[in-house]
Amino acid sequence: MTNTLIPYYAVIFTSTQKENIEGYSDMAEKMEILAKQQKGFLGMNSARNAVGITVSYWESLEAIKNWKQQTDHLVAQQKGRQDWYIWYNVRICKVEREYEFYS
Amino acid sequence: MTNTLIPYYAVIFTSTQKENIEGYSDMAEKMEILAKQQKGFLGMNSARNAVGITVSYWESLEAIKNWKQQTDHLVAQQKGRQDWYIWYNVRICKVEREYEFYS
Repeated sequence: MTNTLIPYYAVIFTSTQKENIEGYSDMAEKMEILAKQQKGFLGMNSARNAVGITVSYWESLEAIKNWKQQTDHLVAQQKGRQDWYIWYNVRICKVEREYEFYS
Repeated sequence: MTNTLIPYYAVIFTSTQKENIEGYSDMAEKMEILAKQQKGFLGMNSARNAVGITVSYWESLEAIKNWKQQTDHLVAQQKGRQDWYIWYNVRICKVEREYEFYS
């Protein structure tokens, strides 16, 4: 998807959740739709077992900063800290190289 | 885990698998044990639903290169391309900032 855009940026969001996460999946869906509408958004992937990993890709650090401060996203972050997450870690990364395999 | 080590490096491995992945989970377990023994290894997280995401963390690009070329890992990569993966993408990233939340 993104090879020609290098360097671009990745946000690696790793988390563990509480047992009762009422409202989470609706919010996650809303945030995914909203993220895709942001300027500079390139793509995202998510998976969750014992830990959840969401990686989103962005054109610039500024795009990441804008998304972090987007009003509805701020509400979601606050709700996440209060109700859903036991722990999370956010890493801001510069993607320096990329390669892909297709069978 | 790693805040004081910044900058360090992340390898984001994103993949989709075939339906029959006989032998995969044994190999994945072996590779995780082996990765943890490599010089410069800092940590890793994995999760899989529709896509699988494994992120491993390393002290340097050299440590990543050495792991990529480690003999048993080369065998596993070859087997993965032949038998298990429909598609995969590997991104080599420099971790520039990190923050964490504990409830």
